[in-house]
Amino acid sequence: MQKSIFYHAGCPVCVSAEQEIISLIGLDKVEIVHLGEETQKVSEAETKNVKSVPALVTPSGNVLHINFGASIDDLKG
Amino acid sequence: MQKSIFYHAGCPVCVSAEQEIISLIGLDKVEIVHLGEETQKVSEAETKNVKSVPALVTPSGNVLHINFGASIDDLKG
Repeated sequence: MQKSIFYHAGCPVCVSAEQEIISLIGLDKVEIVHLGEETQKVSEAETKNVKSVPALVTPSGNVLHINFGASIDDLKG
Repeated sequence: MQKSIFYHAGCPVCVSAEQEIISLIGLDKVEIVHLGEETQKVSEAETKNVKSVPALVTPSGNVLHINFGASIDDLKG
């Protein structure tokens, strides 16, 4: 089964959402990407239409922007 | 197991998010509430700190506001 990808940047809003998403979906079904640490993946996230974090990209390619932590623009080196 | 509650208002953003949430979490684990049709539940949603729809209230009581469809204020009779 294809995994969802949860993009976040370590902010409190992100961490809270991450725990909820893992609890709801299951850790085996979601890949966690910390854009604050893996800055080389920011452009990958943009390609997937991630506009802000935290965001969940589903296996079907839709982006669910959850609450609001930080704009993707603020994460660019 | 306690269910999550997905509040929406029938907007295109809501319907799209609803399908994703059901697909991710499973229809048996989430109760769907259409605040446009069940207006008596708007105040219940407010009590749970829902500020906009679509939103998912998790079993632990946290609110995940997903994308942005409509402000809860716009749904009041």
